[in-house]
Amino acid sequence: VAARPITFLSDYGADDEFAGVCRAVIARVAPEARVIDLTHGVPRHDVRRGAIALADSLPYTPAGVHLAVVDPGVGTERRPVAVRIATEDRVLVGPDNGLMWPAIEELGGPVEAVELSGSRFRLEPVSATFHGRDVFAPVAAAIALGAALPDAGNAIEPGSLSRLVLPAARPERGGLTVTVLYVDGYGNAALNARAEDLVAAELPPDRPLAVEIGGSQHEARLGRTFGDVAVGRLVVYEDSSRRLALAVNRGSASEALGLRPGDELVLRPADDGADQSRRSPRVRSD
Amino acid sequence: VAARPITFLSDYGADDEFAGVCRAVIARVAPEARVIDLTHGVPRHDVRRGAIALADSLPYTPAGVHLAVVDPGVGTERRPVAVRIATEDRVLVGPDNGLMWPAIEELGGPVEAVELSGSRFRLEPVSATFHGRDVFAPVAAAIALGAALPDAGNAIEPGSLSRLVLPAARPERGGLTVTVLYVDGYGNAALNARAEDLVAAELPPDRPLAVEIGGSQHEARLGRTFGDVAVGRLVVYEDSSRRLALAVNRGSASEALGLRPGDELVLRPADDGADQSRRSPRVRSD
Amino acid sequence: VAARPITFLSDYGADDEFAGVCRAVIARVAPEARVIDLTHGVPRHDVRRGAIALADSLPYTPAGVHLAVVDPGVGTERRPVAVRIATEDRVLVGPDNGLMWPAIEELGGPVEAVELSGSRFRLEPVSATFHGRDVFAPVAAAIALGAALPDAGNAIEPGSLSRLVLPAARPERGGLTVTVLYVDGYGNAALNARAEDLVAAELPPDRPLAVEIGGSQHEARLGRTFGDVAVGRLVVYEDSSRRLALAVNRGSASEALGLRPGDELVLRPADDGADQSRRSPRVRSD
Repeated sequence: VAARPITFLSDYGADDEFAGVCRAVIARVAPEARVIDLTHGVPRHDVRRGAIALADSLPYTPAGVHLAVVDPGVGTERRPVAVRIATEDRVLVGPDNGLMWPAIEELGGPVEAVELSGSRFRLEPVSATFHGRDVFAPVAAAIALGAALPDAGNAIEPGSLSRLVLPAARPERGGLTVTVLYVDGYGNAALNARAEDLVAAELPPDRPLAVEIGGSQHEARLGRTFGDVAVGRLVVYEDSSRRLALAVNRGSASEALGLRPGDELVLRPADDGADQSRRSPRVRSD
Repeated sequence: VAARPITFLSDYGADDEFAGVCRAVIARVAPEARVIDLTHGVPRHDVRRGAIALADSLPYTPAGVHLAVVDPGVGTERRPVAVRIATEDRVLVGPDNGLMWPAIEELGGPVEAVELSGSRFRLEPVSATFHGRDVFAPVAAAIALGAALPDAGNAIEPGSLSRLVLPAARPERGGLTVTVLYVDGYGNAALNARAEDLVAAELPPDRPLAVEIGGSQHEARLGRTFGDVAVGRLVVYEDSSRRLALAVNRGSASEALGLRPGDELVLRPADDGADQSRRSPRVRSD
Repeated sequence: VAARPITFLSDYGADDEFAGVCRAVIARVAPEARVIDLTHGVPRHDVRRGAIALADSLPYTPAGVHLAVVDPGVGTERRPVAVRIATEDRVLVGPDNGLMWPAIEELGGPVEAVELSGSRFRLEPVSATFHGRDVFAPVAAAIALGAALPDAGNAIEPGSLSRLVLPAARPERGGLTVTVLYVDGYGNAALNARAEDLVAAELPPDRPLAVEIGGSQHEARLGRTFGDVAVGRLVVYEDSSRRLALAVNRGSASEALGLRPGDELVLRPADDGADQSRRSPRVRSD
């Protein structure tokens, strides 16, 4: 029987051979398994960004084994785990630190889980700092070849898995208080809100919005895509993961507004007052 | 029948999962298709740099499907297209914004083209901002599996495709005025000129050259490779795409001369005058 | 017969299409060969860093053909070579500039070598500056398909291959003088020493260490992994390649101590004196 495909996401970056060595270990164990690199550019140790990227990606990947490593606690008491989920018999392999939780939840929840520290598929000796190479990659490859979870480790209670909960948007004082979840490479800022949150906060879709951050206000428009506003202008749109996001057409919202992950901002209806142009200067991109 | 290989070039970068999700979509549709990543490091929205990289790469790739996404106008009126070209039945898939034009031209011109916005192979719903995932990748995969272009979209006139024309070098005032097309990761600057342009401008191959930029002059030599000049010196050479380029041996021409894409400079014969050493200081690299 | 897998390491970076074009050339010659990218993020022209990454990776890769290109002298007198090594019939392909030497040595030494500049498998014309595309990639692919070394180039004496020798740690003055070999993407600094060097230098494993660099001292502890010290503290540990390394838990040792490759530092027992806290301030990470 053919090997299942293996997707691979990490914060290993492109500078070092970490991701490459994991790919090599997989190729030794499962030469026929297709490896699909999702990204290795998750910011170092940023479990939340990794979790969002994984949950956003998996619905588009073939069902198979899903290797994910963002693991600041490597070698400590956090558990290495493999988790089978309800949908399509997918298996996620990685550290039990919340990284995999949003994906697990989105795909129907965990139905079986094993702890991997003594896995018979691990490479020996297991280093204290590179479980990607020594535990996660060889276990993922063995599962891709057909190993059952009980063969890969010791059963644990699926309910005991670490959870990661994202902050919620808050309708308040005539607006919607939101948090920047992450900034992508184009400078677009993903928010913890969806289109329906705008409706719930009674923000009219046909009126300009004000984006308030740190005391200053910026005029924005609701749009479908970047080009729905003029070059250099701010647009609030539903991104490809159906989150609200902030962009500057042909520019960087992150740079224009100084946005960083974790920043809070408020979306509210723009005033129609005479002084609006003063309080809502044009956002420029370079 | 086996799937054709798919090459993939974009400006999606390494920080996010964009390129990875497209690879995943391809793997779902065409599990057997080999995906060859050309680069995802095209500077964001830099259609010209992407177009050059694509045209330079395709002669070295297997014939197949060639997915290219540098798409600042995503979701607006620019057309998503697939284009079959004369050579080896290759098909290019991407936005009709000039990105694919130099490659199409170099490989014999377009013989058939379809518009993809209503393609039966697209993922639904199509997001407004991620056509790589929702349109281009699944269409490329379907074509790699053997779908004919008329099945993938609505026929359009090949002559209507957007063209991208690079600036031309100009022989003038005893020299050759050239433009920096791009700077590579080593700091080498590719120019819009070829060796024959030097001949046409009557620049003698056996004499030192002066590179004039923004009023200052730098001495250079024509060479075959970096090591043909001393460490830290400037060399004008024919690069691996047969363009003239500027490099500093073991250094960065871009940093040494402050070069950026779009900069104009003049190549002319170096003076033999007594004051040459003053006007042509040694270029240093760090 | 199936093609052997090809691993690929270079300093081509992610910005340009260099690595992608080499992958494309391989796919043309050997469509069935699996290509495993180890890394293309070796610092530009850093032969030593590339050599260490290659030697550290190969024991984890499938036996096959191992393509490696960090080649500041491309097009000059340095030889392009293919080298067969004692272990598992592996073949390394790349420039003869020391890049491949530590891996060759670690895997049992060279048993056969050929010079490739006139290889019948090269692409013609061979450019002067992109031997990865024109010489190394097509030769590697041909060997992966089964070509014997004598068919790929002219036999040379294995003993004539360029060697690269790393600096050795030196026990002296009650401590161990070590050199930073490289800094990884997390800011961890790999040292040219192993656990046994600490023993030889009579540094007690159960006592705090002082790390002396440029006249200032920093307190550290020996640990197994990052989490064995408090957040922001310095740990000396055995890394996944069994080298001693310096890390800051959840931080960057490189930034905290200003470390760069080539820096020398001294590991010695920390004083137990009353003034220790003053001389060994807490290292902070951001």
